Amino acid sequence: MPANELRKDYILDRWVVIASQRRRRPSDFVAGVRMHVGGGLCPFCPGNEHLTPPATLLYVFEDGELKKARDEDGNRRRDWIVRCIPNLYPAFMPPESGAAQSPRIEHHYVSMDALGYHEVLVESPNHDEHPGVARISQLTLVINALRDRYSFFMGKDYVRYVSIFRNHGASAGASLSHAHSQIIATPIIPSILGEEMAASEKYYEERGRCIFCEIIDMEARSERFIWENDRFIVFAPWAPTNPFEFWIFPKRHQSTILELTEDEIRRLAEALKVSLGGLRSLLNDPPYNYGFHMVPEKYYHWHVEVYPKLAIWAGFEKSTGIYINTMPPEEAARSLREAFKKEEELI
Amino acid sequence: MPANELRKDYILDRWVVIASQRRRRPSDFVAGVRMHVGGGLCPFCPGNEHLTPPATLLYVFEDGELKKARDEDGNRRRDWIVRCIPNLYPAFMPPESGAAQSPRIEHHYVSMDALGYHEVLVESPNHDEHPGVARISQLTLVINALRDRYSFFMGKDYVRYVSIFRNHGASAGASLSHAHSQIIATPIIPSILGEEMAASEKYYEERGRCIFCEIIDMEARSERFIWENDRFIVFAPWAPTNPFEFWIFPKRHQSTILELTEDEIRRLAEALKVSLGGLRSLLNDPPYNYGFHMVPEKYYHWHVEVYPKLAIWAGFEKSTGIYINTMPPEEAARSLREAFKKEEELI
Repeated sequence: MPANELRKDYILDRWVVIASQRRRRPSDFVAGVRMHVGGGLCPFCPGNEHLTPPATLLYVFEDGELKKARDEDGNRRRDWIVRCIPNLYPAFMPPESGAAQSPRIEHHYVSMDALGYHEVLVESPNHDEHPGVARISQLTLVINALRDRYSFFMGKDYVRYVSIFRNHGASAGASLSHAHSQIIATPIIPSILGEEMAASEKYYEERGRCIFCEIIDMEARSERFIWENDRFIVFAPWAPTNPFEFWIFPKRHQSTILELTEDEIRRLAEALKVSLGGLRSLLNDPPYNYGFHMVPEKYYHWHVEVYPKLAIWAGFEKSTGIYINTMPPEEAARSLREAFKKEEELI
Repeated sequence: MPANELRKDYILDRWVVIASQRRRRPSDFVAGVRMHVGGGLCPFCPGNEHLTPPATLLYVFEDGELKKARDEDGNRRRDWIVRCIPNLYPAFMPPESGAAQSPRIEHHYVSMDALGYHEVLVESPNHDEHPGVARISQLTLVINALRDRYSFFMGKDYVRYVSIFRNHGASAGASLSHAHSQIIATPIIPSILGEEMAASEKYYEERGRCIFCEIIDMEARSERFIWENDRFIVFAPWAPTNPFEFWIFPKRHQSTILELTEDEIRRLAEALKVSLGGLRSLLNDPPYNYGFHMVPEKYYHWHVEVYPKLAIWAGFEKSTGIYINTMPPEEAARSLREAFKKEEELI
């Protein structure tokens, strides 16, 4: 199977995967036709492992101990607690033989092979185990599995960035409802991260300080503050592109989740449960996306951005890059603050 | 009424309007609650003019001649052919007294007043007069009205950019189904335009040529070519962020629609009718957005980008700025080419 193609816009630093592997016919796009998983058979539920590729990472309990495993083809385990599998329709795929690549430039056409990985992390055997209702111990396993895969992908010399994200709800792009997140490893630094890196590196060099650490300090004392435990802070950003958007930061300066201590992992699990659970109760289980931002450079401060899907980006946003948000973050923070507090009391 | 606030992200060159005037309560965002215009009463249909603000521009026929007019408050005309009105919930508003402004910078918080304009252009008295089915003569009036308003807004010293866009279909953000487009004037250069300007100015200075003219030449001979008349060309871009995306360019180098000749206006009307009609028949009236890109600088080449709304941008796109498109533009162009050809024969 040939690799998909990554293409750069003529002018913008905006890259697109031309995912021929996922190609559909024009008639598949006709309005009214929606692709659903039919018959109620969930490919991520235990017992249906044959519907997905062999797992690249499993967490299992053996002899009362948590162990790592992986599927051998033809013998897929059913006793997993967390399960990582290649996406059946990957946007990025590993090369036959792995080598770093440079963009191909032919006049105004710039392209690369979409080398990398695209995996699904099934967060629980329980179909409905949304992070907002999961046990902290289960979320701790999820975070550890993400760390495992992140570390593995980042070790490849053709991988330059690893994105961890979650889509919840059909209108936020989740084609399956079983609790899962996704991991995509790319051969380029994404534009949003590139901009963040350039700015935070410059700040670090000029002032000897992390720009994100400063932002955290300021927002901890602002109207946009939402919630904290002793390791993490959650606040609504100054200029959110989505109503009720919030960001989760580790208080200690660290560039990726690989630097988390055991205590911090547990506290991150708590932060995810409280915040995603709070969002869920406040807005009646709204669709949302979240994405980790992580760069293994000393000047970078990793974090998670949560984007509730409550508005539509239309012609203005798409053609200008300016967003219209009808919910001031200060007001969103006030509601979320209360909802998170109630959620915390339930733990 | 105080102005809305425009805010810049901490780091990215990404601006957001904090549109307090359009504020809704948290409960309004609860999933399942959708805002529709009730009772079938369309505020854009003739006879319902009292439901909207007075028109800032009307085209009417008087004594067999096309004339410009505007509503006096308390006496709204019903005999219009094209009608421009202020948006009832504007994202941008004119100032009490008009002066250019600089961003306010307070440490990591950068903001500006969201000064400008936000108008709706009702394209026809006929509720369903989609550009794909409208008469060329009606579309010619629409283009002329857009030119009128564009010119008026650009004349204000607090306006730095004017965006013309169209949302079609509820899932593409159209809250009303009556044929209309929108015009937003902003006090900043939007990031996407800023990037295009920087690149095209540099190219112009270094090579003495318009980068867009070169792209047009190349795409006219590529697999991505879709359609042309003697004044306009339509092609699928090299790296589209949407399935079936296409761009419409004037063949002659010109920076805004103010430079259009009378013949070109008619040919643009034809290009809009053929392309939006072709999209409509190919994909059964899909939702879409389009946006004009225009900058009154000699190095810039204006165009229209049409974004069919056939996929969902999810956690990966939102957190990285990398887009996944499942439809190669060469394949999209093949289908669109055929659809546009059939459409043209119907004119």
